[in-house]
Formats: sequence, structure tokens, C-alpha cells
Amino acid sequence: MMTIEFPDKFVALFRSDLGLTVEEYALFTSHFHKEFVGKKQHYLREGDFNTLKAYVTKGCSRNYIIDETGKEKTLFFCFEDWWLGDIESFLTGKPCKQYVQAIEDMELLCITKADFYKLGERIPRLMSWFNTKIQKTHFATMHRLMEAKCSQPEEQYLSLLEKQPDIYQRVPLQYIASYMNIEPQSLSRLRKRLTQK
Amino acid sequence: MMTIEFPDKFVALFRSDLGLTVEEYALFTSHFHKEFVGKKQHYLREGDFNTLKAYVTKGCSRNYIIDETGKEKTLFFCFEDWWLGDIESFLTGKPCKQYVQAIEDMELLCITKADFYKLGERIPRLMSWFNTKIQKTHFATMHRLMEAKCSQPEEQYLSLLEKQPDIYQRVPLQYIASYMNIEPQSLSRLRKRLTQK
Repeated sequence: MMTIEFPDKFVALFRSDLGLTVEEYALFTSHFHKEFVGKKQHYLREGDFNTLKAYVTKGCSRNYIIDETGKEKTLFFCFEDWWLGDIESFLTGKPCKQYVQAIEDMELLCITKADFYKLGERIPRLMSWFNTKIQKTHFATMHRLMEAKCSQPEEQYLSLLEKQPDIYQRVPLQYIASYMNIEPQSLSRLRKRLTQK
Repeated sequence: MMTIEFPDKFVALFRSDLGLTVEEYALFTSHFHKEFVGKKQHYLREGDFNTLKAYVTKGCSRNYIIDETGKEKTLFFCFEDWWLGDIESFLTGKPCKQYVQAIEDMELLCITKADFYKLGERIPRLMSWFNTKIQKTHFATMHRLMEAKCSQPEEQYLSLLEKQPDIYQRVPLQYIASYMNIEPQSLSRLRKRLTQK
């Protein structure tokens, strides 16, 4: 069996922030396994079932959907120390509505849904954390909706940079443009203008 | 004290679906009070604190934000038997980012956040229901984001009609257009075209 190294932020989250005991933490982490997703590979496709909770230790990805004209629309990106997947499919057991594609080679730490809920019964704080996590995911999605409805491209550009300063080095321009609902050419012009400021 | 009549769907939700006992249900509902919001009045404004859980028994409303150019952007509507408010402000205790405005005269059944959480400690099923409710709210918001990114106006028009068949009788055209991110004139043309089909 491969030994798994858990990143500092993961340890801090469950040990310091959530306050799991040494025993609880050991039990929890013993249920994780590693998964790898190669660059451009899909971790999930529309119609798949998201049965894993996956913590990103390396790489980045995008969640996207395909519109009626066949065009891919990027909803959001995922980087190190985030949780990856289609949370609706995970929670409801229904097929995914989204695609999740690796933009770089990715390494994930995964626990099955069944194991997670089984442990949640023994360690109630895990479920409290998960419920709070869902709330935060909801707030982030609401902010994305408000941004999609309201923000000018320049504002969205700066907001992305603030959240993930290396995003323009790691994520191809066309995905960022799709996230911002503009054409790649417009994003190129915007970047030129802003970097010349 | 005014006697409160709880609508059938409210009773069914907490008695049949959630399975509260007669005593639990009586305790829970004894903490509700009625509130009224006049047509065009704001139930919440940006910067307010959402400290009530409010169940809509009559009327409808819209949640909106104001963009940098001062334009109102409708995020979603709320009708009878829905819960009203800015859930992020309710959960975090932070100021609202959204406005909630009555489109018709509204009647609400309200319980304070403090009472709700206090009861949640005595009736754990209430908290389970609330956590599930947040999940569903999250899914609805994610669908709104996907729709905002993807859907053609015609599709959004039909989806609104399906969810709320009387929406075009109750909600002014400009709010629906703003929800769909199109100009009111375009919505008028779209309606004409679709009703002639």
C-alpha cells in the first residue's frame, strides 16, 4: 500500500480547525487513496456519478458544461487545496450535469462517499464540517452568479487574479475567456491594456 | 396575540415529510410571527442583516443586485411556499449583498434566527431539514448559474413558465427581462413569437 502524505493545509483543516483527535484523524485519513488525472483527461463527464470526495494536492482543473450550440462554458476552476467534483451528483447520487477536466496533471486524495458518511456517523464533527463546507460552496456559487450577471470583464479579470495570482500562467486563455463569457481575443486585448497600465 | 394559520404545504413539510411530533410541531410553530411587506417595499436592502427565516404565504418578490452602472439585475423570484431572504447573511451574520423587494403585497411567517437555532438544538431533525434545504438552495443557484452561462432566452422563458405558470401575470416584464439578461423589448418580441406558435 502506498503511503499517503497529507498536505499541511489538509492537516491544519482537520486537526487544528476542526479539532479531530489524533485517533479520529488517523481513522479518517486511513480511508483515503490517491488518484491521478492526466492533463486534459476528464475526472468526470456529464452522466457520470460522483462517488468520491477528492482533495486536490497537485494541478488544476475546470468544471464546464456544453451549451445547445455545442460550445463549452467554463463555470469555475479548481486548484491545490480545494475539493474537486460535482457536489450535486455527490449529494444526490444523480448523474453529473458538469464535466470536470484536468488542465494540468493532477494528484488527488480521495475518500468514497460511503466511507465518508460511515465515518461521519462515528465522528459527527466531520458532518458539521461538511455542512459548513456546502454553505461556503453555496456562497461561492451565488457570488459567481452575481458576477456573471453584473461584472464587467475588467473586474472579473482582477478578481480572478486576486483569488489565484498564477492563473494566467497555468490556465489557457480560452478557458478563462469562457469563464468570463467573452471571446479570447477580447481577453487578450483586456490583458494588454491592463498590463500596460 | 394574532392566531397564525399555517398553510397546508407548511404543515405537510414539517409534520409528514420531516416527521415532527405533535409536541415538536406545536413548539416550533409557537415561535412564528406574521410580517407584511407592501408591494414595491423592500424586505431587505444591501447592508441589512437577515435575522429572520421567512416563509411566504402570500405574494411574490425578487432578489436583485445593483451593478456598477447602477442597473438592477434580478437574480431570482420568490413565490408562495418558498423561503425568503438572503441566506448568506442569515448564515454568516454578515450584511446582505442583495436587495429583496416585494412585487405584490406579501404575507410572511417568520421565526428569528436565534429561536430557530435554539429549537434546532432541541429538535435535531429541524437542523437536518435546514442542512438539506441549504443543499437544495445550492443546487438551484448552480442551475441558475449554468442557465445564465448557457441558455438561450427562449429556453429561459419556457423554464420560468414551467416553474411558475402565472409568472407573466404577476411579475412586470422588465424584472423578467433582467432575470434573463435581455432587454424588455426583446422579451416582448420573444413572447409574441412564442404565443403565436
